Parts: sequence; structure tokens; C-alpha cells
Amino acid sequence: MKIAAAQIHPQFAQPDKNRNIIRRYCKRAAQQDVDLIVFPELCISGYNFSSKEQVDSFAEPVPEGPTTQLWIELAKEHNMIIVGGLAEQGRSEGIYNSAAIVGPDQFLGCYQKIHLFANEKDWFLPGSQPPHVWKLPSAAIGVLVCFDWAFPEASRILMLEGCEILCLPSNLVLPYAQRVMVARSIENRIFTVLANRIGTEPSTGCKPITFTGSSQITNPLGEILARGSRTRSGLVIAEIQPQKAQDKFLTGQNHIINDRRVELYQRLCNGDQR
Amino acid sequence: MKIAAAQIHPQFAQPDKNRNIIRRYCKRAAQQDVDLIVFPELCISGYNFSSKEQVDSFAEPVPEGPTTQLWIELAKEHNMIIVGGLAEQGRSEGIYNSAAIVGPDQFLGCYQKIHLFANEKDWFLPGSQPPHVWKLPSAAIGVLVCFDWAFPEASRILMLEGCEILCLPSNLVLPYAQRVMVARSIENRIFTVLANRIGTEPSTGCKPITFTGSSQITNPLGEILARGSRTRSGLVIAEIQPQKAQDKFLTGQNHIINDRRVELYQRLCNGDQR
Repeated sequence: MKIAAAQIHPQFAQPDKNRNIIRRYCKRAAQQDVDLIVFPELCISGYNFSSKEQVDSFAEPVPEGPTTQLWIELAKEHNMIIVGGLAEQGRSEGIYNSAAIVGPDQFLGCYQKIHLFANEKDWFLPGSQPPHVWKLPSAAIGVLVCFDWAFPEASRILMLEGCEILCLPSNLVLPYAQRVMVARSIENRIFTVLANRIGTEPSTGCKPITFTGSSQITNPLGEILARGSRTRSGLVIAEIQPQKAQDKFLTGQNHIINDRRVELYQRLCNGDQR
Repeated sequence: MKIAAAQIHPQFAQPDKNRNIIRRYCKRAAQQDVDLIVFPELCISGYNFSSKEQVDSFAEPVPEGPTTQLWIELAKEHNMIIVGGLAEQGRSEGIYNSAAIVGPDQFLGCYQKIHLFANEKDWFLPGSQPPHVWKLPSAAIGVLVCFDWAFPEASRILMLEGCEILCLPSNLVLPYAQRVMVARSIENRIFTVLANRIGTEPSTGCKPITFTGSSQITNPLGEILARGSRTRSGLVIAEIQPQKAQDKFLTGQNHIINDRRVELYQRLCNGDQR
């Protein structure tokens, strides 16, 4: 199975242009026989919003909106799985920082980011559902979004639910996630695809933000199979056998799920945060 | 505060010799004004046992046994905190892979490793208590032992209990822990001291094992402040301000404890492992 992070440079507030970039990247990926492609967080709108109204104006219902419809079309045309981030107009009035997942035959679902970063707290509602794994014929795929990297709980839940490939659409500005995702791969014995964007976004009334690129695909041993540049766009591709993530024996006597001491972990799940 | 990992080369089955090494390292550390020194896992007996009887023969009660008594003496003499690993003769009949913590004025306690590695399952009982934090005037100190690195739950519990410095006495043979401990520092915003041993241990009836050295001290930003050689013994020292680990704001709007979504983490704590 060939998997890819599409390290693109979305243009702020230009959804049509960004959907064209997506179209082009899917075509290029298909030419290289990619089976799963992951686009960055909020890759339709850009990131550095200056008001909630601005965010709202780019939100789309999923799957009815134009972006998910495009992904459905492209997934079918190229026989691939597509994961990508967008501002989602929820069923009621909230807007979510979401990632849609679309298979070759159908729309599969949507993950609403549960750990919001910085200003996102002003723009988005946090998701109310735990991370989810979609079990496809080719692989079991889990989805988180960007800042979820910081919470080992999120990827751990995906692993326990059978995730083989963790997809992380991102708009990273801090220097941590690339190293931490290597640990997420090792500790959960899963593949991780970090799809980050590049570019700088100045925006009225906001400080410019520079995104760090360096998308990466890591195997369950923590080996980085492919890595993107810090500053240039491009496809980051690796060939993998997803079922290798099913081997949870770190040694002949250590199965990382069975070795968990759940009865001693209750502190993680009780309401008292401190 | 100066903290140190004592990257030593314990001699297999020679407890007196190893206690002399410890004595020497504490003296050297004191000459450099070290306030906290961490020795490797099982640093009195060595690691590559060939029978349970052999392990049992090196087990000592804590704090009554000669090693903890030595640590109490050295901690007092040098006005330091000492953390170190040893085979503990439990109150009943079991033997634990433990780490003792001793302050300048008194014995503080003992952590019994909860995630046993490979053959250790034949030699030791797993601990039955969650990881613990000792709150001293100079710092809040949490203790894990070696393979506990693989379980993000263990360090997370320490963070939630207020840990500022995570001490990890180790006998590492796999190539993962050094990278993962950087992630443990970042995700929990704590200092981590990985104290690993060096050397190769052939042993009757067992394959020789080579330990990987590379002890390291990492700050809450994931910066490696000091690192040991892969093959040479030595003190790995860094000067830190432990209270920096109290700052849980990753950004002005992101407090890594308050941002946890405990209500969505229940999967981590229920009995069904898969």
C-alpha cells in the first residue's frame, strides 16, 4: 500500500484555488499509485483567521459541501482514500475543525478535533466524540487533527480501537509534533502520517504565522520512511504493509496492549484534573 | 538545582563492587554540587540473570538492606537526593524490580516497576501501585523504571500528580527509549532523567546483552540538556529550575492539564483491552 502526505501551500481565503491544488495533488498521487493521501488541516480556508465571521464564511456541511463532494469524486476517479481537514458547519449551529475521510466508493465519516489550539478556541467548537478508527479492506485508519498530537491519550485510544495508520492533518507552528509523532508510532506500534502545510500567512489584525512543513511518515519501529522539506511543497510518499501494525509484540514476552496495567491507570480517567 | 544520571557499568553478581562504584559516583557528583543523582535499574546485581534463584539471592529488603542503607548514608553525607534501582525483597515472598528514593534526611520510599520487560516476568512480581510523586522542598520527583517508558500512561499519571522531574533508572537494550523520553518531556512539560547503564553481560545459559548508554536529561521543551556516551561510563549533569515544569501553558490559551478531555478518555481505563 502506498500512502502519502500532501504537503501543500493553501492560499488564505481562496477555497476554489485550494480545491484546485487538491485536484492536482490527487492526480499526481494517482500517477504514483498512491492508495491513501492525507491533506493538511483547514486546507480549504487557510488558518490565520481574524474573526469568527471569517471562519464561519468558509465552513461547509460534511459531506454535502463542495469540498467533501470533490473528495468523493477524486477518491472514486483515482481509486484512493482521501483524508483532509476543513472547517465544518455542524448539524446545529457550531463550526468544527474537522477532518473528513472518504473511500474510493463512498464518504466514510468525519472527525471533529477534540483538542483545540490557541485562537481556535474562539472560532470552533471542540468535538464531543472520541477519536474513531475506520476499518477499510486495505487498512484500519484513525484520524486526529494537529494539536491532538500533544495528548498521548488520543492516539492511544486509536491504537486500542485497532488503528494501523494514524493520519494527522496539521497546520503546525511549534517545533514539537514531528518528534512526538515518532514516539506515537513507537509506543503504539502504528504507522503515522503527519501531513503539514508550508507557507506564511499574514492576516489583517493578526501576527503572521509560518508553518513548519516537514511532513513525515513513520513506521511502527519509529523509523521515518519519508519526510518533506521545511519550506517546499510536495508529495511525501512511502510504501507500507499496514498489517505490520497489528503486531503488538515489542518482544516475545511483551504485548503492548496486554501489558497495559489498566487497573493502575484510573487516575487518567477521573474528573479531578490535578 | 543540579541533577545527574550516573551512567555506570555494574559488574554482574558483584554487589559489593557495585556499591563501591556507587560510593565513588556520589562523591564525584557531590564535588560538582549535584543535588539529585539517578543510578540505573538493578545497579547492584546486574541484569542478565539465568535463574530465579540467582535473582532472589541478590534481593534485599528496602530500606533495611545494605544498598538502601548505603544510599541513606551517602545522601546524608553529600546532602543529595539519590534514586537507584535494585532487586527488592518484598514484605511477603515476592521479589520486585524496584527503585528506591532517598533524601538528604531520610529514606523516602520505593517504586515497584509495574511494566516488566521480557524475562523479568519470570524473575519479578509486577508492582501493584500506580507511579508516585515525592514532593521535596527542592523538587517534586516521580520515579519509573526502564520499560515503563513504553507506556505513556505511566508518565502521564506522574504529571497529573505534580511531577517536575521524572527519574528513569534503566537497563536499556532497545533503541527506542531515548527518543520517547523526549516526547514524555514535551507532552507532560516535565524534566526527565534517563539513567542508563553501559556494558555487555554474558551470562551462563543466556544470550549476551549489550546496554545502550546514552543517558539523557531533557527539559520540558524537549531539549536534551545533557547526554551520555553510548559506550563510556560517566556522570551526565545538567543544571535546571524544576519549577519550570509547573508551567503547563504550552500557549497562552493551552494548559495541557485543563485541555485534557477526560470525558472522552474512558476507553483508556476500561477493562476491555481490545
